Amino acid sequence: MTAATPHTRFIKTSAEAPLTIAVTAVDETGAVLDKQIACERPLTLYLNWRPIVTLMTLGARPEALALGYMKNQGFIKDLAQLESVIVDWAVNSAAIITREQTEDLDKKLSEKTVTTGCGQGTVYGDLMAGLDDIKLPVPSLKQSTLYGLLRNINDYNDTYKNAGAVHGCGLCEGEQIRSFVEDVGRHNAVDTLAGEMWLKGEAGSDKIFYTTGRLTSEMVIKVAKMGIPVLLSRSGVTQMGLELAQQLGITLIARAKGRHFLVYHGAETIDFNATPGKTGQG
Amino acid sequence: MTAATPHTRFIKTSAEAPLTIAVTAVDETGAVLDKQIACERPLTLYLNWRPIVTLMTLGARPEALALGYMKNQGFIKDLAQLESVIVDWAVNSAAIITREQTEDLDKKLSEKTVTTGCGQGTVYGDLMAGLDDIKLPVPSLKQSTLYGLLRNINDYNDTYKNAGAVHGCGLCEGEQIRSFVEDVGRHNAVDTLAGEMWLKGEAGSDKIFYTTGRLTSEMVIKVAKMGIPVLLSRSGVTQMGLELAQQLGITLIARAKGRHFLVYHGAETIDFNATPGKTGQG
Repeated sequence: MTAATPHTRFIKTSAEAPLTIAVTAVDETGAVLDKQIACERPLTLYLNWRPIVTLMTLGARPEALALGYMKNQGFIKDLAQLESVIVDWAVNSAAIITREQTEDLDKKLSEKTVTTGCGQGTVYGDLMAGLDDIKLPVPSLKQSTLYGLLRNINDYNDTYKNAGAVHGCGLCEGEQIRSFVEDVGRHNAVDTLAGEMWLKGEAGSDKIFYTTGRLTSEMVIKVAKMGIPVLLSRSGVTQMGLELAQQLGITLIARAKGRHFLVYHGAETIDFNATPGKTGQG
Repeated sequence: MTAATPHTRFIKTSAEAPLTIAVTAVDETGAVLDKQIACERPLTLYLNWRPIVTLMTLGARPEALALGYMKNQGFIKDLAQLESVIVDWAVNSAAIITREQTEDLDKKLSEKTVTTGCGQGTVYGDLMAGLDDIKLPVPSLKQSTLYGLLRNINDYNDTYKNAGAVHGCGLCEGEQIRSFVEDVGRHNAVDTLAGEMWLKGEAGSDKIFYTTGRLTSEMVIKVAKMGIPVLLSRSGVTQMGLELAQQLGITLIARAKGRHFLVYHGAETIDFNATPGKTGQG
């Protein structure tokens, strides 16, 4: 778990939740095989004893997930507000307590029902709020660094290698992965890293955000809110993901695997110092 | 679009939305390439002029998506309630009008804030409602049929092949694909097919549901609500997806690609009549 700040104490009242379980499956030959599958469990987030949301999660770092969610959805704006986070897997809950009451909670909750893409989109209204204030630095990235990072990322994705059915996200600096988390929900993985960065007071300006997931609108928005100017994905990009990256000035790199990648925005911020033979392959 | 029922008239006030757009990307050799990327646009659903949710969607079949969402989330229980669906891409909205006012809408909306896994899970409380009433037939599936279906599915996934970054879902009967839809949100794709089946009054008992996405809890729940006893995926399965399939009696087949698949539940409902040489490979 992330280190507590002077502001915050954590109380974790239940044991670590397992990330995979052993099951058997029958393959196309009729053979019965031992397999691991990813755990998935509900985690209901409470803010000052008010239930806010139930997330379906792998449950790797529930405190960071709860905090990242509350921050990204605008429930908590200042870390100094935070008094404690209490996770209890016995009742699948994460209770967040703040020093002052969060204002307009009722109003906020009623508004959420309007714009929440329930399990399908995102809390769009809230998530978009404050985007205009975001000023990201212009990054400078070497292709050789990108390749080094992609090599190092191969050492992660443990649950994916073991059980599949999860997405991974990494907070990276140069070739190094500072933090990596997997979840059955790709948004949970992003929120978990956002919560960690927030707690550590870590700057995003010198970071690269890696995800195995697709670069859709909310992925770009959340990374921008983390102050990170480079977004790197093994998967593809959507129209709104690209438009938001252009608007926010995020270098957007998709299909990054091995030595291949596609820069959809910000190619001028990359030093192509390790260019393989011109293949022109997409 | 799906055929209107005697109950329902559709008014679509705006042109079809494009599914992909042309952009340029720079690859690892520095070459500038022409690429297609998947469109992603917000669609705000209104029920009797009350905004309910904003979905981020590819927008292939917005009317079916809007109806499937309303049905799966329990906003509309009887098709006879439905008066019209009005989609207007000029304002990214889908307005659903019912004959009678839907009761307790305020109560329902306030409840949603408690259980909605916003963009990360699903509207769990509502979605789980009525699961106990579901009685699915025991399916009977030939391995040869499964292989035929997987071959036929290769002819679909158009947007994926063209632009990536989307999930595909298919409503299948034997080797035939009755309906196939893609979306940037895998839940949207499921809801779209659910909406179509509902409008057509189509039974699920003789169908197979195919998805490129992972078999998580809400995917299994939605397919059960469609009355479909077989769920087939190119991807993996999570713990809750498996537990729900066991509870609901759904034959759960994952990692289905080419001649390979893994049956996680209901292997006894499959006739292994095309078994390749025993490889025992997982």
